[in-house]
Amino acid sequence: MDWAGGWTVLADRVEAVITVAELGEFGLIAAVHALLPRPADARVLGVGDDAAVIPAADGRVVATTDLLIEGRHFRRDWSGPADIGVKAAAQNLADVAAMGAAPTALLVGMALPGTLPAAWVLDVVRGLVAECQRAGAAIVGGDVTSADSVMLAITALGDLGGRAPVTRGGALPGDVLAISGAVGRSAAGLALLSAGLADRAVRDPGQAAPAAEFVAAHRRPQPDYPAGPLAARAGATAMIDISDGLVQDLGHVAAASGVRIDVDTGSLPDRDRLAGVAALLGVGWPDWALAGGEDHALAATFRPGSPPPAGWTVIGTVSEGAGVWADSRRWDRRGGWDHFR
Amino acid sequence: MDWAGGWTVLADRVEAVITVAELGEFGLIAAVHALLPRPADARVLGVGDDAAVIPAADGRVVATTDLLIEGRHFRRDWSGPADIGVKAAAQNLADVAAMGAAPTALLVGMALPGTLPAAWVLDVVRGLVAECQRAGAAIVGGDVTSADSVMLAITALGDLGGRAPVTRGGALPGDVLAISGAVGRSAAGLALLSAGLADRAVRDPGQAAPAAEFVAAHRRPQPDYPAGPLAARAGATAMIDISDGLVQDLGHVAAASGVRIDVDTGSLPDRDRLAGVAALLGVGWPDWALAGGEDHALAATFRPGSPPPAGWTVIGTVSEGAGVWADSRRWDRRGGWDHFR
Repeated sequence: MDWAGGWTVLADRVEAVITVAELGEFGLIAAVHALLPRPADARVLGVGDDAAVIPAADGRVVATTDLLIEGRHFRRDWSGPADIGVKAAAQNLADVAAMGAAPTALLVGMALPGTLPAAWVLDVVRGLVAECQRAGAAIVGGDVTSADSVMLAITALGDLGGRAPVTRGGALPGDVLAISGAVGRSAAGLALLSAGLADRAVRDPGQAAPAAEFVAAHRRPQPDYPAGPLAARAGATAMIDISDGLVQDLGHVAAASGVRIDVDTGSLPDRDRLAGVAALLGVGWPDWALAGGEDHALAATFRPGSPPPAGWTVIGTVSEGAGVWADSRRWDRRGGWDHFR
Repeated sequence: MDWAGGWTVLADRVEAVITVAELGEFGLIAAVHALLPRPADARVLGVGDDAAVIPAADGRVVATTDLLIEGRHFRRDWSGPADIGVKAAAQNLADVAAMGAAPTALLVGMALPGTLPAAWVLDVVRGLVAECQRAGAAIVGGDVTSADSVMLAITALGDLGGRAPVTRGGALPGDVLAISGAVGRSAAGLALLSAGLADRAVRDPGQAAPAAEFVAAHRRPQPDYPAGPLAARAGATAMIDISDGLVQDLGHVAAASGVRIDVDTGSLPDRDRLAGVAALLGVGWPDWALAGGEDHALAATFRPGSPPPAGWTVIGTVSEGAGVWADSRRWDRRGGWDHFR
């Protein structure tokens, strides 16, 4: 007698087996729209027109865009679709936070093979929605098209709330270097996945407990978005999102600011836990922390008289000179990502 | 003795033969940046940081995003890289104009095979830059990554200048329907290219003269961006960018507004020229005008007492009812694009 319930089950089954091509472009768009919560800000004009309209009370808007390609930025056999959605949103929203801005909106382009299960795509959208909600942003627009492999193109917007943007170019000799979050966790998780140890790590409740956490961090980075505006209000002189590796990204700050940056690896959060997991694999942990990307921790510099706010960890210093040094050794860019090499 | 000149020639030769992979991600980014003019608005913080900062004087920002996939949205053997860049920019900037806003900024994601000549990519950027300059917008950010085929992900931003956005949902019975630009030209150009007649059309100065123009329109649509804000100021009740075909896109307006829209094909701009080229191919022209997309003409509705501004052509009427009718025949959506069918 429960017709409504019966239909729900049927709809779930259909969703599980039909492909993107069977659903069609307009069916897919309708299904995606159905997953998007109504924006909390009633002034937002979201999906369904030629373009979205998003409040930008500051009179400026912060904007950034990133591409994620299957096989390069994610693997469908290593990450579930919701995790891929979370990661795609997080890396863009973190770029907004790294300017000192609060994320407001996300636009999502999806290139998809027609043979892909529609349910997979909808789970990606669920991940995008979940991370947007964590960041206080709304998905306001997008595009879908067919392609031979999965590609996500994400644009994030944000509002500076009247503050000056915190660029990479403002670090001064004498500043302290701090990070919000931790670095190396995603790289450790990726190494565990590559070694086929992820499942063992998840099952083993002993030494491998951080391993399971690191695999989760690789699959689903969880940046602390409010840390960006918080650092800006605390007077951060420079800030960057750590996406390509700590040393490489600090290299951008050092170059743009015309300073030398020294990292003290002994101050890095999670150092002991990284070392424990590295021992499982018979490798050293510093490469994960110094060269591993995709944690989307924020790094910022602060005047010595304006210490970092709560939640930030001091990990180094800024001085006259050039380049990035770790424990008094100059590090080159090896280990950073060059997407064509 | 002309060392500088010699180096320029050498640089041109190197650029012509080296691949994206040989140039590397950072080399490519540097080469792209070198092609970007400094934004005319000194308050713009453009490429080179985690995110861009763009003035949004209106206190709101208009945003839209589109993907362009090689083989589906463009063919490298039919369109040169500069044309592809122009087209990618135009289709997004036109979406901004269709809200009644002035384009301000473009973000550009490029997924590229490593084997692609770097010169090809830089010519795409030159096309993007040229169209942005025509629209008064600046390229403020982007992303490059490797992939198996070329894909462009474009996001355009715009400013409403204090006006309400013109959505698809405001058309009222009694309104007149008008377009800025013409429809069917791009589809005619595509048909000529598909039939292998493009070169003959270009060479023949007689009847084929419009054919050459239509091929050019397919390769490089040139929307009239100021027509969008102009229509908004003239009191347009609804507006849309014609990208998927006139009937299909007007169908969105009819559905969102809850009205019937009638198109009089005898009023369509370029009707006679389209008919002439269609005769060359032995086909009918109305399908090009009614179902062909990618001209990026704007269609808008106006109250009977507020006629369309200069440059707009009245092509129909709005009444009570539903659906889109052409010359008193109801048209279905055949011919429109569904990207997965």
